[in-house]
Amino acid sequence: MPIVTVQMLEGRSDDQKRDLVEQVTEAVSNTTKAPKEKISVVIEEMSPANYGVAGKRASDQ
Amino acid sequence: MPIVTVQMLEGRSDDQKRDLVEQVTEAVSNTTKAPKEKISVVIEEMSPANYGVAGKRASDQ
Amino acid sequence: MPIVTVQMLEGRSDDQKRDLVEQVTEAVSNTTKAPKEKISVVIEEMSPANYGVAGKRASDQ
Amino acid sequence: MPIVTVQMLEGRSDDQKRDLVEQVTEAVSNTTKAPKEKISVVIEEMSPANYGVAGKRASDQ
Amino acid sequence: MPIVTVQMLEGRSDDQKRDLVEQVTEAVSNTTKAPKEKISVVIEEMSPANYGVAGKRASDQ
Amino acid sequence: MPIVTVQMLEGRSDDQKRDLVEQVTEAVSNTTKAPKEKISVVIEEMSPANYGVAGKRASDQ
Repeated sequence: MPIVTVQMLEGRSDDQKRDLVEQVTEAVSNTTKAPKEKISVVIEEMSPANYGVAGKRASDQ
Repeated sequence: MPIVTVQMLEGRSDDQKRDLVEQVTEAVSNTTKAPKEKISVVIEEMSPANYGVAGKRASDQ
Repeated sequence: MPIVTVQMLEGRSDDQKRDLVEQVTEAVSNTTKAPKEKISVVIEEMSPANYGVAGKRASDQ
Repeated sequence: MPIVTVQMLEGRSDDQKRDLVEQVTEAVSNTTKAPKEKISVVIEEMSPANYGVAGKRASDQ
Repeated sequence: MPIVTVQMLEGRSDDQKRDLVEQVTEAVSNTTKAPKEKISVVIEEMSPANYGVAGKRASDQ
Repeated sequence: MPIVTVQMLEGRSDDQKRDLVEQVTEAVSNTTKAPKEKISVVIEEMSPANYGVAGKRASDQ
């Protein structure tokens, strides 16, 4: 605990995902005072065909 | 906000997924009065090997 | 299957939530061709203190 | 209802996933008294590049 | 890792929830071979007004 | 998009939750290059009776 889930469109580089996990963990630890060892981060990448806002998918824009 | 997640077995066509995002957004907007621009829809497609009811996976039936 | 989750700010009436479940189920059935009996809808209501966009919570605006 | 989601690193065999769905369903039915027919299990498999603890991804260790 | 989430209607006793966490953890450890210390279980309890099947909420039946 | 969900035990102050939303949004924007206006953060607070590790709930320790 805490468990952080980041849902985002696919397409970020491996370096970006490594930095994301590192910096989100720091932000959560700084503000909640949970030790870093207790913080998990899960990245869920979505296809533009599987995500939409305002009724229109990212792949249809 | 609102954020809608639809988990379903893989196998729907791209047209079905486009219609799904459009019609679910309308249903949520109609009933919650949230403007469409504020409504996100995420589709999560599952393999039949990763989903089961009553202890039996879809791929084992 | 399918499982639909709607996350939204608290404050809708019981009638709105009943209509939401009914109309979202219809939209999902119409577009995915899943029979209604197989469609579950879960509503998760959030406090404005627990949701933010652009780094600012709904309760701080 | 109930809906059980198991998030885990990819790499388990098909047999392990079948047993997982079967045994988790039994554990939930035994303890909650929900009939098995009402229990769904979803497996979400993650890449080691998309999961980290203590700020470090599984793929970076 | 693994992270298990159990969504169910509210109303189970504290003893049932303790047994649920214990027995689900065993089932996941037995089948995935993950050590128990790595397995987290989260219970999300829902109001009957926030859950429906076939377009009808549990609270409307 | 992106959508960030933070699941944690209840008990943090309102100030901690405000800072959490602000700093997590910055971390996600810095690393994914998504503009802040596109980033949503949801906090889900859990009771110690509804969360366990290694088969033992936080409320039983």
